[in-house]
Amino acid sequence: MRLSVLFAPTLREDPAEAEVPSHRLLLRGAFIRPVVSGISATLPLGVRSMRKIEQIVREEMDASGAQEVRMPIVLPADPWKATGRYDLYGDLLFKLRDRHGREMLLGPTQEEAVTPMVAGDRLSYRDLPLNLYQIEWKYRDEFRPRFGLLRGREFLMKDAYSFDRDEGGMIRSYQLMLSAYRRIFDRCGLRYVVVEAEPGQIGGGVNHEFMAVAEVGEDLFVECSNGDYTADVKAARPLASEPEVTGDLEALTEVHTPGAATIEEVASFLSRDPPEMLKCMVFDVGSRPVAVLVPGDREVEEAKLERLFFPAPVRRFEDGDFVAHGLAKGYVGPGGLPDGVEILADHTVRTGRNWVTGANRPDHHVTGANTPRDFRVDRYEDLVVIRTGDRCPNDGGELRVGRSIVVGHIYQLGTKYSGPLKATFVDEDGTERAFEMGCYGIGISRILAAVAEQFHDAAGLSWPKAVAPFEAAVIVANRDDERVSAEGERIYHELGELGVDAAIDDRDETAGVKFADADLVGYPVQVVIGRRGMDRGTADVKLRRTGERSLVPLADVARAATDALSRAP
Amino acid sequence: MRLSVLFAPTLREDPAEAEVPSHRLLLRGAFIRPVVSGISATLPLGVRSMRKIEQIVREEMDASGAQEVRMPIVLPADPWKATGRYDLYGDLLFKLRDRHGREMLLGPTQEEAVTPMVAGDRLSYRDLPLNLYQIEWKYRDEFRPRFGLLRGREFLMKDAYSFDRDEGGMIRSYQLMLSAYRRIFDRCGLRYVVVEAEPGQIGGGVNHEFMAVAEVGEDLFVECSNGDYTADVKAARPLASEPEVTGDLEALTEVHTPGAATIEEVASFLSRDPPEMLKCMVFDVGSRPVAVLVPGDREVEEAKLERLFFPAPVRRFEDGDFVAHGLAKGYVGPGGLPDGVEILADHTVRTGRNWVTGANRPDHHVTGANTPRDFRVDRYEDLVVIRTGDRCPNDGGELRVGRSIVVGHIYQLGTKYSGPLKATFVDEDGTERAFEMGCYGIGISRILAAVAEQFHDAAGLSWPKAVAPFEAAVIVANRDDERVSAEGERIYHELGELGVDAAIDDRDETAGVKFADADLVGYPVQVVIGRRGMDRGTADVKLRRTGERSLVPLADVARAATDALSRAP
Repeated sequence: MRLSVLFAPTLREDPAEAEVPSHRLLLRGAFIRPVVSGISATLPLGVRSMRKIEQIVREEMDASGAQEVRMPIVLPADPWKATGRYDLYGDLLFKLRDRHGREMLLGPTQEEAVTPMVAGDRLSYRDLPLNLYQIEWKYRDEFRPRFGLLRGREFLMKDAYSFDRDEGGMIRSYQLMLSAYRRIFDRCGLRYVVVEAEPGQIGGGVNHEFMAVAEVGEDLFVECSNGDYTADVKAARPLASEPEVTGDLEALTEVHTPGAATIEEVASFLSRDPPEMLKCMVFDVGSRPVAVLVPGDREVEEAKLERLFFPAPVRRFEDGDFVAHGLAKGYVGPGGLPDGVEILADHTVRTGRNWVTGANRPDHHVTGANTPRDFRVDRYEDLVVIRTGDRCPNDGGELRVGRSIVVGHIYQLGTKYSGPLKATFVDEDGTERAFEMGCYGIGISRILAAVAEQFHDAAGLSWPKAVAPFEAAVIVANRDDERVSAEGERIYHELGELGVDAAIDDRDETAGVKFADADLVGYPVQVVIGRRGMDRGTADVKLRRTGERSLVPLADVARAATDALSRAP
Repeated sequence: MRLSVLFAPTLREDPAEAEVPSHRLLLRGAFIRPVVSGISATLPLGVRSMRKIEQIVREEMDASGAQEVRMPIVLPADPWKATGRYDLYGDLLFKLRDRHGREMLLGPTQEEAVTPMVAGDRLSYRDLPLNLYQIEWKYRDEFRPRFGLLRGREFLMKDAYSFDRDEGGMIRSYQLMLSAYRRIFDRCGLRYVVVEAEPGQIGGGVNHEFMAVAEVGEDLFVECSNGDYTADVKAARPLASEPEVTGDLEALTEVHTPGAATIEEVASFLSRDPPEMLKCMVFDVGSRPVAVLVPGDREVEEAKLERLFFPAPVRRFEDGDFVAHGLAKGYVGPGGLPDGVEILADHTVRTGRNWVTGANRPDHHVTGANTPRDFRVDRYEDLVVIRTGDRCPNDGGELRVGRSIVVGHIYQLGTKYSGPLKATFVDEDGTERAFEMGCYGIGISRILAAVAEQFHDAAGLSWPKAVAPFEAAVIVANRDDERVSAEGERIYHELGELGVDAAIDDRDETAGVKFADADLVGYPVQVVIGRRGMDRGTADVKLRRTGERSLVPLADVARAATDALSRAP
């Protein structure tokens, strides 16, 4: 491709709307252009990189036995009402009515489309397992779309759906996808972790997230410094410490703490540290009161509580709830709570003694509280928000909380969709049984942004070669010199013959502009041919990622560039 | 691909909803499945064929210098209001509002998206010409979607947009696309005609349609039996006949024709033939009355009238109009019409004399009417609906009216969109000028159906090899015989090594089911290996289109199948 004709209008200035590097550089490098909030057009360079990612995904999906189909984007609303997701998604769904008033929506994912379709053909157990995938644009009407391709309202996804005869089959299909996903993200050059995660709006049981490590990411994960454990921060469970059993128990003493209702206020008032305090949070769990105890310096992870009591809804007590249950907000403690209040404690509570906690009376706390002498704990569970410094449940190593971009998510669904949508197959004994399903998503456009987040520097993007728009660029530094132009063309064609996906910068621009654009767009290998080099009989071969350069005799340039490419990440 | 795992549930029965062969066979052959009226899912076989068409389109677009981009499907409504198409499309647009109440729509085409995008980068004349294309799903909320992929509400289109500095450049870009389109449809194996056509809702000036010949088509075209002329039926102009000048003129005579208000009634009442009568139709053209004269056996082509008076709206006189102008409906004739009524006549009127026509008095006609003696004609124009038997304007050959499916449409737009959307570039002299644009559409999913319409028989589909889901199928007739299975596998692998895109029917089905499915799905070449053949040392190689079969020694089968494929259309 000749850059003199390529539609790639790079920008000199940082666009005001771009808050994160990938958005800024994909705009500046002419990969995308904004159309309306959360919705972008993709320019030729972006199309090239996106297609390379698509092709990697397609190859690995096909290799794992999945088959490509294509579901509509505009879907009837009825099946979404049948599964309850019409309301669950709420305003996140783009809804519309057709000219006859029929309710439709733009698919955010496609369980409600693929499941009835497969069911419509009355398959037998002999037709299973089946795994159907597509690569198609999806829609979520985000309240605040941002970060360009990272949180858009229109995004390209690979979504796959497996159909199995029984749970064992479903798990085998799931494992195949887990392996395929690792190969896909490895080939894209991403640094990522695989974590067991929350089900979210898709639902179902076991599920894993593939999280590309990135400072700008909105999703937290946890990893062990020894590399043997990764988890979604909402699902991670730190090592449960052993209880301390040394020393005497203090006496339980009530203290007057006027106006001190928060952990910080009480700690300060009593000259104690927050870890010495016992925080007692009260929740409404499906209309039952549940108290949760954690050390004063920790937070309750509500997602863990939700999972524990699934499917009952969980919400924090509000002012009215405290009044209704006769509890003193700000001064609640476990001692003397009514029998009807279930008391859970995080495992970390086992390690503490002589707690300072609420006295269940306004402006009063107690010190020296100990279980079971002074309060009961109905059960210990994993309930805290994890934090850097917690211990790995596998080996006790130090856990670190990191930020990431979720680029893939896979789910074991069971019959969550096949049940309500009455999607069955005929089993060997002639009975109709609901498919055991799995679903598997990859954000193709989001991968593009995640790679950009991981691979850029002050000068611009530095793509891994597998997803670069071109593998190499031949830069004709002095286009007005016919010898230089001719030699650039020769090298460009030779690279093509060697199978390199190359571009040639034959634009009528200064060498400085061309160098800056090459670093901005991020071709993994740059070949620079200029007047001085021609006189010396050499060209410059540069690896974008490392900046490593070498002067190469003109006759060897194409081969040297190919070698450099094979060394490039 | 093994058919034992391929998701291709063929149907034994004709689906009730399918009215045309392509719809019926694409459903039965497991290429598509219905989701909701006018919206289909594409199964693996359909995806394979669709991708082959996409690839042909992509190759020819790239070869002609166009560049692939990708525009959003969900678009803001504002630019559509600026160009007036928001109202012009009306109910054909799928409209929606996002969660913030912003008006959006699903793109039926993308002029309003691509034009502001290109304008946003402040290009210079040196960046032109530019031709950007995409392959993406488009939306039209058809009142009555039907015929499967032929008239759907969601359809896959390649749309391209050229941007030029001046009209000459635009015409060059247009010619490049005209040639690329011919190569695309040739490679798809379609029989088609290229006609100059009406602009429709896209607007602009010169435009051409690519019409795939098909009995079920909804679009009429005209072609000369000598092959030197084709046209859209609404634009075709027959050879204008020479006036007859022999014989005396009859006297103008008023006759009483009680209750005879139609051509047929008057002709029957007066024992005349319809061609002897002069039909006088009255139209409201931008609030002016215009009378149009055509022979009694011809119809007025309103599209021609609209083009003549563009942009004034044209509508037939209704009852109230006749009253308002003091005209006797059913008895209007050109003699004695008020001066304010413009009188147009079709060229065919020149050839007649002594007309029978309305007397402008209820229940009365005149005979022997001649111009200019008895009535005036302000001008002669081409105004009739063309019909089989008309004469070719090029060589006088006989014209034939045929039916077709429009698979491509290209337009010279000029500044129709760049003007209202203020899309300019900086010209050599530093002034801002509006782009001269062209736009170019191809219906990818519609091509699939058009090919199916052209290439099928009673047994099923018979794809041209360029768009067949697989080029060849190896049919293992007796799967329970291990020798037969092993030999089938050997041939299947050898075909793969020879570069043939082959499938193997290794299903646990009877030979009869496999033969029927192979004919239904329409693999161009079938290789049948069965027990009897094994005993004899032969397999059967069959060309689907012609039914031609040959018995081939097993060692030569793969080579013979490859040869057959090279001969297949």
